[in-house]
Amino acid sequence: MIIEKIKESRFTPEVFDIETFGTAFSDHMLLCWYKDGKWGEPIIKPYGKLDFTPAISVGHYGQGIFEGMKAYKGSNGDVYLFRPEKNFERLNKSAVRLDMPEIPEHIFMDGLKALVDLDRQWVPATHGMSLYLRPVMFATEEAITARSSNEYLFAILTAVAPNYYNKPLSVKIADRYSRAANGGVGFAKAAGNYAGSFYPTHLAREEGYDQVVWTDDATHTFIEEAGTMNVMVRIGDKLITAPTSERILDGVTRDSMLQLATKLGIEVEVRKITVQEVYDAHKSGELKEVFGVGTAVVVNNYVAVGYGDERLELPLLSPEESYGQILKKNLVDLQMGVSEDPFGWRVKVEENLVEA
Amino acid sequence: MIIEKIKESRFTPEVFDIETFGTAFSDHMLLCWYKDGKWGEPIIKPYGKLDFTPAISVGHYGQGIFEGMKAYKGSNGDVYLFRPEKNFERLNKSAVRLDMPEIPEHIFMDGLKALVDLDRQWVPATHGMSLYLRPVMFATEEAITARSSNEYLFAILTAVAPNYYNKPLSVKIADRYSRAANGGVGFAKAAGNYAGSFYPTHLAREEGYDQVVWTDDATHTFIEEAGTMNVMVRIGDKLITAPTSERILDGVTRDSMLQLATKLGIEVEVRKITVQEVYDAHKSGELKEVFGVGTAVVVNNYVAVGYGDERLELPLLSPEESYGQILKKNLVDLQMGVSEDPFGWRVKVEENLVEA
Repeated sequence: MIIEKIKESRFTPEVFDIETFGTAFSDHMLLCWYKDGKWGEPIIKPYGKLDFTPAISVGHYGQGIFEGMKAYKGSNGDVYLFRPEKNFERLNKSAVRLDMPEIPEHIFMDGLKALVDLDRQWVPATHGMSLYLRPVMFATEEAITARSSNEYLFAILTAVAPNYYNKPLSVKIADRYSRAANGGVGFAKAAGNYAGSFYPTHLAREEGYDQVVWTDDATHTFIEEAGTMNVMVRIGDKLITAPTSERILDGVTRDSMLQLATKLGIEVEVRKITVQEVYDAHKSGELKEVFGVGTAVVVNNYVAVGYGDERLELPLLSPEESYGQILKKNLVDLQMGVSEDPFGWRVKVEENLVEA
Repeated sequence: MIIEKIKESRFTPEVFDIETFGTAFSDHMLLCWYKDGKWGEPIIKPYGKLDFTPAISVGHYGQGIFEGMKAYKGSNGDVYLFRPEKNFERLNKSAVRLDMPEIPEHIFMDGLKALVDLDRQWVPATHGMSLYLRPVMFATEEAITARSSNEYLFAILTAVAPNYYNKPLSVKIADRYSRAANGGVGFAKAAGNYAGSFYPTHLAREEGYDQVVWTDDATHTFIEEAGTMNVMVRIGDKLITAPTSERILDGVTRDSMLQLATKLGIEVEVRKITVQEVYDAHKSGELKEVFGVGTAVVVNNYVAVGYGDERLELPLLSPEESYGQILKKNLVDLQMGVSEDPFGWRVKVEENLVEA
């Protein structure tokens, strides 16, 4: 690994005051190029510009995949990653489905740790805040021919993540547009999945909702995801979520929440869940919560669910009553090193990994 | 429009000898940037590099759309476009579905004509050859947050298109993977549609096929597209193709072929077509042709269709017998200015549109 340190750090304590997500990048980035059938030597260098022509393959044919991760700083100053092997494995599952080369584990893991170590001052110590980590791979060949690219860039970027305030969000159940096809790329963290979701989300916003709850494309009767997150529904005291499939992303937060919930004694059901069931549970008063779970925001507890022309208002639960908020607190405490880690999920980033 | 001419042209007659598609770019490119809610002034300048960071939005969230077009040179030296308004309209349909800004007609059309005029020596005069034109738009904002980009690049690139030799191609009918969802982006010329198709095509190649015939994602019983082209099936003396839909691209070549076929007295049916029907027609000896139609290759007459473990060999028809080859000849003759243009499809590119 080549290390090219920034001459003068751009860090100031004010970087933690940002309110937007994903636009304030730390000092360094990791780059690794794939060419002639193999990965080159990774390099960590100052975050900045690269040369591409408008013939860059990803702009035309969309071979792009990514992961969302975070680095956390405990009160003792230790910096942690959270289950990074899950992101590594999923990135390579995405790569296979998008006909892209898999990234070797040592490039991903050693690169990630070295980068976070080097920029550890960018990891905020405030509880609930973190440094967002973005491993990404996209097609860079200068060729406008409809085939898999012969060249790729794997990069890891890091951006300060603000402490999401709990803006109440509402969601609209999809009854016209879809996110994923059977036999498609829904399970992959593929660039095209996001591009296809923006317009239906735009339409949902015009109806007064913030996000879309995706349903199956054939019948719109089964609930699949919410926004860019996995979705969980609480009916009575049962927490229900759809099984992962080729249409549904295998979320790291989803998996962690399910394990945490079981440990906390919450009854969990992983099974298909219908729109009708959610609707009926609302009518009978048993629908207690619907929330999205994902790395960026951890938990989004929805205040309302739109179904056709109806807006189903959800009850306002206290943080102590809400499964979503209980799980969020337990997960963040574990991630930040405040609580024990019975699952072995925290991975400490050792200091001075990088000799420059 | 700003014109910045290349200091010394890279053109030599040898550029027409290339055998690969989409990698040899002409002297100039058109660029136009969208920022702060509006399109800037387009600029034509030497083809080359731009600055982007790895946080370029399209690499993460896949907002990218494009068109495929060609410029043709008649024997009198005139340069023609073919139905450019169809590509303009479709690009903006794609833009809406991908939540991207529409491009104004004058930027698209005036820019296209000025660019082709300026690089008219790059349009080969050999019958069957052309200069490939690639209008493309993708998201350029430096932001890794899952929302529509606030900045876009619209570009037109041009690349010499070789005269495709008629390598016999075979296709595999999809029975596991899919290209498009109901309520998805299949009708759009969206980057992600291509990315999702490469791996199933890769698998088809391992089975000895060149391309995939896409079917509906729910049942795999209806034929939709072939490779990156629309597909036409000839049973007996009837030419059948699926209606366009939200899952099927509204191909310019497809539409032109249907009009040409009708004019030539070929019986055309635009209706849903099942895999079973194609299979049965092969068994009864009535399946005469299956071919893909699209801008890049015009017509691909397939020699075999794979269905499950069976390889259905198609009859070898002479160019005079084959609907695919008859239509291809008629279309290319029209495009190149060899034949009359009863449809008004040819658009002449006037000379000296550009003052530099």
